[in-house]
Amino acid sequence: MLRHVVLFTWSDDADEERREQTLAALRRLPEEVGGMTSFAVGPDAGLREGNAHTALVADFPDVEAWRRYADDPVHLQIIADHVKPILAARSAVQYEV
Amino acid sequence: MLRHVVLFTWSDDADEERREQTLAALRRLPEEVGGMTSFAVGPDAGLREGNAHTALVADFPDVEAWRRYADDPVHLQIIADHVKPILAARSAVQYEV
Repeated sequence: MLRHVVLFTWSDDADEERREQTLAALRRLPEEVGGMTSFAVGPDAGLREGNAHTALVADFPDVEAWRRYADDPVHLQIIADHVKPILAARSAVQYEV
Repeated sequence: MLRHVVLFTWSDDADEERREQTLAALRRLPEEVGGMTSFAVGPDAGLREGNAHTALVADFPDVEAWRRYADDPVHLQIIADHVKPILAARSAVQYEV
């Protein structure tokens, strides 16, 4: 199984409402794109200084399923409309679990 | 449930053997520290340019269980001995799932 992990840090000028909109858009990915066997995106709990702002962890049956998700036009549109405009930094890993 | 996510980027001067040693040390965390209900650490699959090098995702029943893990002396020793010496960058999030 391939796990896809992304940690997002948002721009300082992205207010709470804008971040909530982006989170809501990311939460639609299982319904609008699919292909994953599990999916959880959410805001950092604020327990540690210096953390990123949002985590996304999604499991896929195999690399091909992840590629279909990654390249899906609906996914790319959500990134273009909701992620990129407020993105300060992004760190990602795909790994076998 | 609280999910703890860390993405590590290793120093260029940390060779494959050194990275393997660090990964092996991190893989001992469930046995040597515990407290999590699931745990998976592994190297990036190399599917995307610009990714971090290693991901760690661990689920804890609650914030207190995560804090016990985070502050455990054995955990801190593994970080000091195996992570910090080869760490170039680290990104983390704890979030409710």
